[in-house]
Amino acid sequence: MPRAIPEERLYRPIRFARALEARPTKWWGWGWEDKVLRLESRPALAAYLGHRLDVDLSVRRPVASFDQIEVPPSRLSSQDLADIQVIVGEGNLASDNVARVTHATGRGYKDLVRLRTARLDHVPDLVVYPEDEDSVPRLLEFAGRRRYAVIPFGGGTNVVGGLDVHAQFAATIVMDLRRLRRVLAIDIESGLATVEAGIRGPPLEEALNAKGLTLGHFPQSWEFSTVGGWIAMRASGSHSNRYGSIEDLVVGVRLVSPARVLEVRSVPKESHGPSLKELVLGSEGALGVITQATLRVQPLPLVRRFESRLFSSFADGVAALRGMAREDGLPDMAYLADSEETKFAAAGEGIAPDADGIAGRRLAEGSLLLMGFEGTKERVTHRRRVALRHARANSTSLGSGPAERWSHERFELPYLRDSLLDHGILVDTVETAARWSDLLAVYDHAKKALQEALWKDGTAGLVLCHVSHAYPDGASLYYTFLAPQREGHEIEQWEGIKAAVTEAVLDAGAALSHHHGIGEDHAPYLSRVIGEDGLVVLRALKRELDPDGIMNPGTLVMGSA
Amino acid sequence: MPRAIPEERLYRPIRFARALEARPTKWWGWGWEDKVLRLESRPALAAYLGHRLDVDLSVRRPVASFDQIEVPPSRLSSQDLADIQVIVGEGNLASDNVARVTHATGRGYKDLVRLRTARLDHVPDLVVYPEDEDSVPRLLEFAGRRRYAVIPFGGGTNVVGGLDVHAQFAATIVMDLRRLRRVLAIDIESGLATVEAGIRGPPLEEALNAKGLTLGHFPQSWEFSTVGGWIAMRASGSHSNRYGSIEDLVVGVRLVSPARVLEVRSVPKESHGPSLKELVLGSEGALGVITQATLRVQPLPLVRRFESRLFSSFADGVAALRGMAREDGLPDMAYLADSEETKFAAAGEGIAPDADGIAGRRLAEGSLLLMGFEGTKERVTHRRRVALRHARANSTSLGSGPAERWSHERFELPYLRDSLLDHGILVDTVETAARWSDLLAVYDHAKKALQEALWKDGTAGLVLCHVSHAYPDGASLYYTFLAPQREGHEIEQWEGIKAAVTEAVLDAGAALSHHHGIGEDHAPYLSRVIGEDGLVVLRALKRELDPDGIMNPGTLVMGSA
Repeated sequence: MPRAIPEERLYRPIRFARALEARPTKWWGWGWEDKVLRLESRPALAAYLGHRLDVDLSVRRPVASFDQIEVPPSRLSSQDLADIQVIVGEGNLASDNVARVTHATGRGYKDLVRLRTARLDHVPDLVVYPEDEDSVPRLLEFAGRRRYAVIPFGGGTNVVGGLDVHAQFAATIVMDLRRLRRVLAIDIESGLATVEAGIRGPPLEEALNAKGLTLGHFPQSWEFSTVGGWIAMRASGSHSNRYGSIEDLVVGVRLVSPARVLEVRSVPKESHGPSLKELVLGSEGALGVITQATLRVQPLPLVRRFESRLFSSFADGVAALRGMAREDGLPDMAYLADSEETKFAAAGEGIAPDADGIAGRRLAEGSLLLMGFEGTKERVTHRRRVALRHARANSTSLGSGPAERWSHERFELPYLRDSLLDHGILVDTVETAARWSDLLAVYDHAKKALQEALWKDGTAGLVLCHVSHAYPDGASLYYTFLAPQREGHEIEQWEGIKAAVTEAVLDAGAALSHHHGIGEDHAPYLSRVIGEDGLVVLRALKRELDPDGIMNPGTLVMGSA
Repeated sequence: MPRAIPEERLYRPIRFARALEARPTKWWGWGWEDKVLRLESRPALAAYLGHRLDVDLSVRRPVASFDQIEVPPSRLSSQDLADIQVIVGEGNLASDNVARVTHATGRGYKDLVRLRTARLDHVPDLVVYPEDEDSVPRLLEFAGRRRYAVIPFGGGTNVVGGLDVHAQFAATIVMDLRRLRRVLAIDIESGLATVEAGIRGPPLEEALNAKGLTLGHFPQSWEFSTVGGWIAMRASGSHSNRYGSIEDLVVGVRLVSPARVLEVRSVPKESHGPSLKELVLGSEGALGVITQATLRVQPLPLVRRFESRLFSSFADGVAALRGMAREDGLPDMAYLADSEETKFAAAGEGIAPDADGIAGRRLAEGSLLLMGFEGTKERVTHRRRVALRHARANSTSLGSGPAERWSHERFELPYLRDSLLDHGILVDTVETAARWSDLLAVYDHAKKALQEALWKDGTAGLVLCHVSHAYPDGASLYYTFLAPQREGHEIEQWEGIKAAVTEAVLDAGAALSHHHGIGEDHAPYLSRVIGEDGLVVLRALKRELDPDGIMNPGTLVMGSA
């Protein structure tokens, strides 16, 4: 597995494609239309999955043709369309079927199943693309008058049913915010960037890199998702140990609601009552539209180093991470795979985990820790030394290679999901967080619930897990689960698994979600974590901001308040 | 100024007095009854102030005798008292004059003037000391039925009029929470402590130290203020650069409101909508009573080091701090005094700043930076090296002495305020925060406003300022201002100065408060920073939690919603 790669290299900013429009995305799956990652391109992984899931990989379950999707006529009148065009300008609205279907869902498992099988229950009646902030309140005013639902839309990568369209409104308008994408100001001295909220990861990072800066926020959806989406969902990126989650990066924000405009000025810290910023964070489109944000940005790292260690067990890896966290010495990026995910990763790299070689035997029970360090040379040297001191016990070095390759390839992995679906394999993820003293118990409990739910019908199942965000007091747990699909019952099969693992996570006292949010999938469980009284407070808040309940109905607080 | 002190010493936990009751506090001033700090004990400082403020220090303005305070009879009936005693238990309520007067104010300038001159407008009718959490909702239910106002009370060190009693209620009950002081659980593995919210700094730190842990939260009120008070006011301590402000330390919290109970479970990070925790933080008693919290705690530092540098100007010192902050290399404690505060500090140390010696001449224009580093030896070595690299330009070393002495004496300074008042000297503080690119402009603007307001009547005035909390994007500014009192018009004099500097701070786009909160003093300005719409949202929140508006009326959102 180790491969010779120079351990230390100067960071070179990458140039990114500027316009999303220039490169179309798939209507039916993840990412760019012209990019696929077939399971067949990784024969060792294919063989491993075929064996573990007991599936015949020659069977194919192709995607329905777009024309099979029944798209009802838009319910907006021509007068509506004319009125809206006055607000957003010609060319900034679309009611064609492609626009409506590509804005009808996110990219969760349920979404992908529905799209692939042409079984969309509802699609929005119109997609609008506001080009300036001023048109947002005018659109909300228009929609409020007619009681049309409005769904704010960023990258469309939501995985918790956060973009579902509901039937009970006279019409639903999706507000695609990706044309609100200007960088308004970069304050190099303070390290602050003020941007329109529809800007995606790459153009934002490009603008910052040009000034020697970085946001340091790299969720796996980074190429597609937007600043507003990150804020709305409380997103975390791979380097959250260093830069923080988006909560830590936002200092100012503007939320345009039907009834109010919340404007949070950007000062480094303040003591003036409950935080309105923290009401906008996690608002999931249900309270209004995030139009603008001021973000903390950091100097581009001068140096990056990677380290990979193979622990004898996941528990040993967790103990090492905990040691680093308690000493304020976490790597800037740390990714600890449990033994099942380690075997999966090894198969992905072409190493059969049950092979006779030493690497294979070790991997069959080992737990892989990938670490990244970045910043000044001095900082990297210091933090690497602290981390390695904790990592050395019960582990062997695999060099920098695996961590560096993971870092370069992590945006590729979601493409593999579509190929698994092609082969009739259910694949989804679920994530949570728990304090260190509970982490292994939560890990076991949720894993067992997943396995039992997957195996319920006698089908084989595979449960992988990793830790990718750590804190002084605990860490995240991120599960990937795979099983042969029950054809014709894909959604029910998934719902059973999802319910079982969610109950297990909550029973164990862990977070309902670490960074994916509530959407519709988790909404029925929200009162379990914030209490009925907490839910009542959120609903009062929604009533105040969105009295007609038109904003992204069904998500977060479920009802229209 | 430099003095030989071993640069590195092992940290020894200090033993603290366990019971507040065992050592009475002053009814008329700061802190312990048996502790005073007279200006006369610092002759160089006295001479300096006498000269700069043009005051005759032989004049004395003694504190009124306690009996001069007119305390109206309690408006609670004997049936009320009997009912309350059933709830809180015998011995946990007090309606004597000393209890009522010592719970009638905080410790702001206005409070001290009122107490010293026996001019309290209102005092509470009763003080209750709940001993268990269960009695809190029962007390609120009782008060709600009778429409009595309830003021939660922690250390009583509020400086923004956050404890003022209002006349328009049938009665006011102060809820002193200091008997809710148990340490409920310490999770060493996760670094989490769950405590009742009335515990003060010293007993909490003592319990943690015994397990090798520290909260690392040391506001200047630390000996007296409580966990609940810190949370209610969004407090910051001297080592916030390392441990964070209280916002960063609280992971779980319970708020008991008249209508609801908000219970925030402690997980390291979560993505489930707007943060209820961030509604409890800064709630200032106006939304309910904070009864319990789970706090992040860290290993006790093994090593502490101090460094002191004298910069040629405040701007140079700010540039050095900014450099450290932008490189993620701030000292764990950093205190940068402007030239006026540096001269004041020098006078306090017995050095006449206008003296002919080199030290004196340097101090007359220099800016003192005190730094503290703590943690493992490895961490301290690394961070000290980074900080000193930035600090070396335009500065000279004063060794570890000044920083170490400051660190040991900082809890003494508030006692000096009472002695200044004895001499008829107005002394108060005002604090804000601004981004780095605005910091010097805000500094100048607010300083000028203070000076003009102080000098308005031809009186001399002195304005000191320091930075004591820094962030990647900016820092705090903390002003101390002094002037001869206008006898008989002390409050009006203060109000004019306070209004002028608050306007200046807000005009400059800086924070209304960095860590002191809103109370009544800042309440009229709140909409300036959060907008009218923000205020409406907070009022809706208050309505939901406190429908009768009985919780700490007049603070935060002003009206009863």
